[in-house]
Amino acid sequence: MLRGFRDYLPAEMIPKARMLDTITQVFESFGYPPVQTPALEYSEVLLGKYGEEGDMLMYRFRDNGDRDVCMRYDLTVPLARLIAEHAELPMPFRRYQIAPVWRAEKPAKGRYREFMQCDVDLVGSDDPSADAEMILIGMAVLRALAVPGFEVRMNHRGVLRGLTHTLGVPDGEREGAFLRLLDKLPKIGRDAFVESVRSELALAPRATERLLELLEGADDRDAALALMDAAVGEDADGAAGVARLREVSALVEAGGFGSALRIDPSIARGLGYYTGIIYETILERLAAIGSVMSGGRYDELVGMFSGRRLPAVGISLGIDRLFAALEELAPAAVAHTPARVMVTRFEDVAPALPLRLAMRLREAGVSALLYPSEAKLKKQLQYASALGLPYVAILGGEEAAAGEVTIKNLESGTQERLKVEAAVELLSRHAPGRR
Amino acid sequence: MLRGFRDYLPAEMIPKARMLDTITQVFESFGYPPVQTPALEYSEVLLGKYGEEGDMLMYRFRDNGDRDVCMRYDLTVPLARLIAEHAELPMPFRRYQIAPVWRAEKPAKGRYREFMQCDVDLVGSDDPSADAEMILIGMAVLRALAVPGFEVRMNHRGVLRGLTHTLGVPDGEREGAFLRLLDKLPKIGRDAFVESVRSELALAPRATERLLELLEGADDRDAALALMDAAVGEDADGAAGVARLREVSALVEAGGFGSALRIDPSIARGLGYYTGIIYETILERLAAIGSVMSGGRYDELVGMFSGRRLPAVGISLGIDRLFAALEELAPAAVAHTPARVMVTRFEDVAPALPLRLAMRLREAGVSALLYPSEAKLKKQLQYASALGLPYVAILGGEEAAAGEVTIKNLESGTQERLKVEAAVELLSRHAPGRR
Repeated sequence: MLRGFRDYLPAEMIPKARMLDTITQVFESFGYPPVQTPALEYSEVLLGKYGEEGDMLMYRFRDNGDRDVCMRYDLTVPLARLIAEHAELPMPFRRYQIAPVWRAEKPAKGRYREFMQCDVDLVGSDDPSADAEMILIGMAVLRALAVPGFEVRMNHRGVLRGLTHTLGVPDGEREGAFLRLLDKLPKIGRDAFVESVRSELALAPRATERLLELLEGADDRDAALALMDAAVGEDADGAAGVARLREVSALVEAGGFGSALRIDPSIARGLGYYTGIIYETILERLAAIGSVMSGGRYDELVGMFSGRRLPAVGISLGIDRLFAALEELAPAAVAHTPARVMVTRFEDVAPALPLRLAMRLREAGVSALLYPSEAKLKKQLQYASALGLPYVAILGGEEAAAGEVTIKNLESGTQERLKVEAAVELLSRHAPGRR
Repeated sequence: MLRGFRDYLPAEMIPKARMLDTITQVFESFGYPPVQTPALEYSEVLLGKYGEEGDMLMYRFRDNGDRDVCMRYDLTVPLARLIAEHAELPMPFRRYQIAPVWRAEKPAKGRYREFMQCDVDLVGSDDPSADAEMILIGMAVLRALAVPGFEVRMNHRGVLRGLTHTLGVPDGEREGAFLRLLDKLPKIGRDAFVESVRSELALAPRATERLLELLEGADDRDAALALMDAAVGEDADGAAGVARLREVSALVEAGGFGSALRIDPSIARGLGYYTGIIYETILERLAAIGSVMSGGRYDELVGMFSGRRLPAVGISLGIDRLFAALEELAPAAVAHTPARVMVTRFEDVAPALPLRLAMRLREAGVSALLYPSEAKLKKQLQYASALGLPYVAILGGEEAAAGEVTIKNLESGTQERLKVEAAVELLSRHAPGRR
């Protein structure tokens, strides 16, 4: 196995596939269709879009026709390329895409060179309702997955730009340092923060005070917005940013998720292409795993490909983090099979009989696995236990002669001999569908 | 866009995603879980497994750490590698995998360098019930997709080996020529076939007669098997092959799909690794598109990686062919969105109102799309039509003041003004779920 890559075995893939099912259902309930873009793109499409580090981490090679190609690095740049190539798409354009991306990063625990991204974007509208829709989709996904205690923390790039002006942060490098410093306050504490602000940004003491007031500000959204108003003052970028945050906030409230939304002036987001609102999502009981859902508005990126400026906003779900969080917050029984019942095979029973029973169960909506050879009961039960199956349908010679079957519950250890149709009925009641 | 690659836009992805949903449901009803393997493998894992042509078509390069790697060429060899690396997997091991593979083939109409494969395999059993299970899964998928008139054509590599012995086909190159000739009879006609057999295989006239008898043989399975019995005579490989075909045939019959199974001695399958039964699937009304589902038993491949011999059998669905066939046999209305209703936005209605209505519809199980800005009704209706939406919920100033909404059916052109809750109820009855 290639370093930094991994197989996903059934025990991991079964719950992950269920999670993805739920996620796509929520996306589609908001009217978002799936699209698919290729794993390979011309290098010129991808290079230069993710900063210097991105270019370094790209899987880039010359293909069999000597074309300079790269493996997909994220789903946003290919979306921008797709929109430029398909001018016939009705605008605004919504889509979701769930697909692996590849980055030649140094592998670490839980970090692989191939990982799944899960993106929703709305292109062609700069309306506050589009911003709110992204946040509502994300929140609806977390609710559908029964993720406890999540909080979306929203900020606006315009507010941050306004702050640099009113605080007197010089343009250029210092601005980057300012963004990097912002989210450090809770981690490094007040004193170290004041020291960093002084040494890295050369802010006046009064400006540092005002920044602290803002960052240590209010949990309440209205109060936080009032603090922002004061902090950006007359700055046009800043004031427009606060106004937008206020509108989006009201729409998220109208959508029924107000209590999970917070205004957080320390959210900065690394990527350069954001131009408007930005957000991250923290799980209260697992803040350490970082943001499980983030994104923002990027009004300039699509225009880099299509020539026509197309405002856009998106949200990206951290599937692997979310999955790890769910496993920690609500661990489920491990299953190595989607089946709910295994049908046995014995030497003294014609193989057509258990096969027919398995087909009958599937018709009745019960996922059924047929043991694929004749073997001792003990061996077959061990196999069913190893797979984590809840039921076994034992069809021995005696049962077969009587048109019956014994249903063994592996969890309770109890068993019951029933007519075949009664057994099918029992299982379709107690073990419908698949895991 | 890179030559030989393509984007899949919503109108194509929506029905394709539905098709994949149905397929995975059938796989899981048989107790098969999903697995995932990486897009990249060490070249030594893949090279030499697909013949000379395969090696030539592989996307092979040196990665950022100077490792010699290849992009996944199919799903079977990675499965064999996975099993060798995970000795802890309970045997027999079932899995399905749906994933893109990459082959640098000359692009042609409908043939791309990136395409989806969809494989089901059962490893660790050489029982006839395992063979029958593959065929039954494939047939259950086609039935679930409502594919009309399919026929699975089954043969056995042992029967073909037996035939070469009894007909006197010399070993080596001639054997390959024999396999390639087999399925040509219906295409080239009797005379040309006899001529080819004479010139390429140097068969005796009596042997040619016997081969023709077999190939022109019987539609009826029992009769076809009797002809095979006669053709392979005392040859051990051949006789075992016919016996296995007879057993599998009886089990597929017991599974309820006997009428769609045919014994066809002309099926040869290209791939070298097959050792037992082999099968292809023809759609009666679209025979020209070729096999939509094929596979067979390969008892030696897994052992090449793991050292321990593990018999295996699999079936692969031609997703793209199947999708094209379904579009031709049962064309559906084109939709560019999974949504069933679009909610309007107007200047004289606070944006929170339509947003709330959209959220309410989603809660009621109706996939709803919110027009993301204020615009004239005409423009919004044009957009809804362009997306192929069946319903629009018009929430104008008048409706809003009365707690009502106008539901317009874009297909019939009719509309009705209703209280909001009555409208939600109507739509959840007439437009539940998603496309």
